[in-house]
Amino acid sequence: MSHAILLISCPDQKGITATVTNFVYTHNGNIVHADQHIDEQSNTFFMRIEWSLDGFKLVKKKIAEAFRPIAKKFAMTWEIYFTDKPTRVAIFVSRHLHCLHDLLYRYKSGQLSCEIPLIISNHSDAQPIAKEFRIKFGKFSLTSKNKREQEKRQIEILKKENVDLVILARYQQILTRQFVLEFKNRIINIHHSFLPAFAGQNPYLQAFQRGVKIIGATSHYVIEELDAGPIIEQDTVRVSHRDSLRDLVQKGEDLEKVVLSRAVRWALEKKVLCYGNKTVVFD
Amino acid sequence: MSHAILLISCPDQKGITATVTNFVYTHNGNIVHADQHIDEQSNTFFMRIEWSLDGFKLVKKKIAEAFRPIAKKFAMTWEIYFTDKPTRVAIFVSRHLHCLHDLLYRYKSGQLSCEIPLIISNHSDAQPIAKEFRIKFGKFSLTSKNKREQEKRQIEILKKENVDLVILARYQQILTRQFVLEFKNRIINIHHSFLPAFAGQNPYLQAFQRGVKIIGATSHYVIEELDAGPIIEQDTVRVSHRDSLRDLVQKGEDLEKVVLSRAVRWALEKKVLCYGNKTVVFD
Amino acid sequence: MSHAILLISCPDQKGITATVTNFVYTHNGNIVHADQHIDEQSNTFFMRIEWSLDGFKLVKKKIAEAFRPIAKKFAMTWEIYFTDKPTRVAIFVSRHLHCLHDLLYRYKSGQLSCEIPLIISNHSDAQPIAKEFRIKFGKFSLTSKNKREQEKRQIEILKKENVDLVILARYQQILTRQFVLEFKNRIINIHHSFLPAFAGQNPYLQAFQRGVKIIGATSHYVIEELDAGPIIEQDTVRVSHRDSLRDLVQKGEDLEKVVLSRAVRWALEKKVLCYGNKTVVFD
Amino acid sequence: MSHAILLISCPDQKGITATVTNFVYTHNGNIVHADQHIDEQSNTFFMRIEWSLDGFKLVKKKIAEAFRPIAKKFAMTWEIYFTDKPTRVAIFVSRHLHCLHDLLYRYKSGQLSCEIPLIISNHSDAQPIAKEFRIKFGKFSLTSKNKREQEKRQIEILKKENVDLVILARYQQILTRQFVLEFKNRIINIHHSFLPAFAGQNPYLQAFQRGVKIIGATSHYVIEELDAGPIIEQDTVRVSHRDSLRDLVQKGEDLEKVVLSRAVRWALEKKVLCYGNKTVVFD
Repeated sequence: MSHAILLISCPDQKGITATVTNFVYTHNGNIVHADQHIDEQSNTFFMRIEWSLDGFKLVKKKIAEAFRPIAKKFAMTWEIYFTDKPTRVAIFVSRHLHCLHDLLYRYKSGQLSCEIPLIISNHSDAQPIAKEFRIKFGKFSLTSKNKREQEKRQIEILKKENVDLVILARYQQILTRQFVLEFKNRIINIHHSFLPAFAGQNPYLQAFQRGVKIIGATSHYVIEELDAGPIIEQDTVRVSHRDSLRDLVQKGEDLEKVVLSRAVRWALEKKVLCYGNKTVVFD
Repeated sequence: MSHAILLISCPDQKGITATVTNFVYTHNGNIVHADQHIDEQSNTFFMRIEWSLDGFKLVKKKIAEAFRPIAKKFAMTWEIYFTDKPTRVAIFVSRHLHCLHDLLYRYKSGQLSCEIPLIISNHSDAQPIAKEFRIKFGKFSLTSKNKREQEKRQIEILKKENVDLVILARYQQILTRQFVLEFKNRIINIHHSFLPAFAGQNPYLQAFQRGVKIIGATSHYVIEELDAGPIIEQDTVRVSHRDSLRDLVQKGEDLEKVVLSRAVRWALEKKVLCYGNKTVVFD
Repeated sequence: MSHAILLISCPDQKGITATVTNFVYTHNGNIVHADQHIDEQSNTFFMRIEWSLDGFKLVKKKIAEAFRPIAKKFAMTWEIYFTDKPTRVAIFVSRHLHCLHDLLYRYKSGQLSCEIPLIISNHSDAQPIAKEFRIKFGKFSLTSKNKREQEKRQIEILKKENVDLVILARYQQILTRQFVLEFKNRIINIHHSFLPAFAGQNPYLQAFQRGVKIIGATSHYVIEELDAGPIIEQDTVRVSHRDSLRDLVQKGEDLEKVVLSRAVRWALEKKVLCYGNKTVVFD
Repeated sequence: MSHAILLISCPDQKGITATVTNFVYTHNGNIVHADQHIDEQSNTFFMRIEWSLDGFKLVKKKIAEAFRPIAKKFAMTWEIYFTDKPTRVAIFVSRHLHCLHDLLYRYKSGQLSCEIPLIISNHSDAQPIAKEFRIKFGKFSLTSKNKREQEKRQIEILKKENVDLVILARYQQILTRQFVLEFKNRIINIHHSFLPAFAGQNPYLQAFQRGVKIIGATSHYVIEELDAGPIIEQDTVRVSHRDSLRDLVQKGEDLEKVVLSRAVRWALEKKVLCYGNKTVVFD
């Protein structure tokens, strides 16, 4: 049976939770998950509420309309999702294919509830995998000159395929402002370091040269500024002087896969809310 | 300003959250934290709701009375706490004093909001620390013969001191059934292994002999069966063939302190609910 | 250029390191790695020494002969390996294919220096993957009646393929004594719990029911007693009351892949020595 | 019985290990630990060798002399230590006393084999603890004007007390060049972040504002550049949107204590070698 998921953020005040839960209750909805958080610094209220539509007295397309007065009263930023309408995902990748491979394996084994109609790359390396999984593959060769033009074509194809979420699974290209704004808070990147340490290029080499005793990986939403967007998930692993640069890469790639897949899973399950440059993750 | 904290568990059904949050809202309470969880296996609903009493229309001693009809309607198991009435804690310890020392240092530096009127031991080692922190010290020598009698005296003194929570900070004695029942879900123990591995005596030696690559510590509520109660918190640390038994003990003691103090802090903040032999921790 | 690797264990006494390193030095070998460990409890000396054969004055097949007097003098248990002779590996699997898939992906991308001529299963699920990677696939249907007979056939085919190392990548069958003895210290298993907790069947369900706050995975050599062999590697991940049994499985499978692949990599690089029921891992 | 510990680094070439271990063996020394590492990038050889002086044919003060020709031959940087001559330590602290408290507790319980004759601070807060542990306390009020002068006096008293190692246990002052050079590779600092992220002031606030999902602590040798010296040890702990800045501080302080104490213990046991801006830690 389908569930509805409501994501809310608004200035905190008395009565929000009571009003929202009453809305669900009076229409005969059965809440299966409800999480809320109050950010004391900004006095912001966040809520994720998920209820079963089994027996719910409003049909799906009437729910938003019915909720609008409440949203207005509390000045809410809000979105509603239905679990029977899967998110459509495009994966961008360059030549390191471990994250792509990992995501597709999870997709195939039912861990990620989404549709993946499209893989885009600036190289041909991922083409065989796309073929194996019967996913459309778009190759867009990139130079400093043609980038904006190629991105326009990418945006077109993304829209044509009704893509909701873009995953940069080690896509070694910096997106332009136009692209980032087009998919605001809908582009997830994996960066192969513990941000904000070692932003930019060659983070494993940077980590190796600095002599850190722990390395990390970070999954975050993409904003204009490089590697500076809201962090969704991070994880770390211990290294030592015995680890060569190659060992760092191997350990790090294992982290990248896990960290990216967790972030993607949470995003698909609508468990992530952005505020300022941070995230609330109702895991 | 004081807060009220309501802990609830009951069979899940429609309308619980709406009813409870309405109760707070209609009496002009400002919710500062609300967490809920539904255990799907047992169809049990859990809630922790904390609101400011600033402007609340019911005086503290009327709140329980006013809430009772709601509790009855949903067949709730429930408790209410007020943050201006600190929990009274007794610490039991034997000869390993690192956890006691750590708890008292946190207590002194304001990390643990409680009162600690009493330290109890079957040895004299902790007496100087008790004196340093100006806490009453009760020594109860134990033999297999006098245990029940001594425990009766311990229970008397605990009651006299209005102790709400007993912490076994490496108390190397097995409590009898009478004691455990007297303080059901109010005795927290630290066990120096990753339970259920290495229950019972000498867990570090057991771990060393088994050749594990990771050791752990577990904080749990005490039930009659040894080391088998509801787990509140666990943590682990990596070891290797290079670690001697003594190294395991040193690494492990660092874990014990952190794991026990987290569990105690959550218990003091009324963030732990027991169900069956498990816990919900609204951390 | 090929390297030689010497693995040694013997009763500790003066002069072992000096004698072994002199052996390499006087034949003009360049040591690239040397690790040693003394187990104080059993007074046992362990060493792994790896040197380049570039310019070494002994040809490969004469090295063992030349070393034998030293080995005899110190009563060594020892083995010599050459990095230009890759280990031949067979993977056993049942119906959960994530570890198999992960190992083959690492194999293909050059992380595991071995040959994998054979995949064996009691089901057909892995056959397409075997085909994709062009690896011979042997299906052996198992019943309580035909087990010993089928194992004999498995051993035959393993010998025919010159298999050095058997990996049980979630092979849901208990090997008989005859098989275990045939490949003593050459069978690596992944168990989906933090051993010795939750040995045997359904460890995720056991962990879920016990209400642990951390789950784990363990890779170990197989001995006759179930899940009781020398542990090579373990790792853990945090869980909470919010994790369903299905969440535990997903988090756990990510651990299994990483833990098994680390253990396999160390075994292939001859970094693991067994003693008693423990391992020394020169990582 | 006393042990000798030799720390060596030199350009890698054939025969180093053989020569050094022969030196110990021919003088009848019993090696209890030997670790070596070759940094392939810089072709540097590192060794730590520890042997029992029980029955050793050279008296302690003759060992260095006897070893000198070997050191010269291989162009070694080297140091020799004896375990019966404990390192003398001074602890610098400002107003956050948790690390000081933790170190002194470990010291008292025998975990740190050193002498601590001196605690230095720019405030009076630590004076009672110093008194409790009967350690000399030096207060040096600091202004931008008197810093160099006060540091000179600090250096004098450190020399008078024969201090070998300076620990900055949350000393919120930047040492001048003169001080750092006076104690090159002999000053250990704890920084309350996962360096190189959040160097400088208020790392917990920086971490909170950046919205990281993991925080860390770093112990490193002090060089002239702030928070940029060779890292000895790091560790991390998970945080979430539920953690306030105060929670970050509490979790972080637990890390600081463990990370600093590990680094100090390794330094006292002569297990740390610096090279370039990195460390080899023979843990």
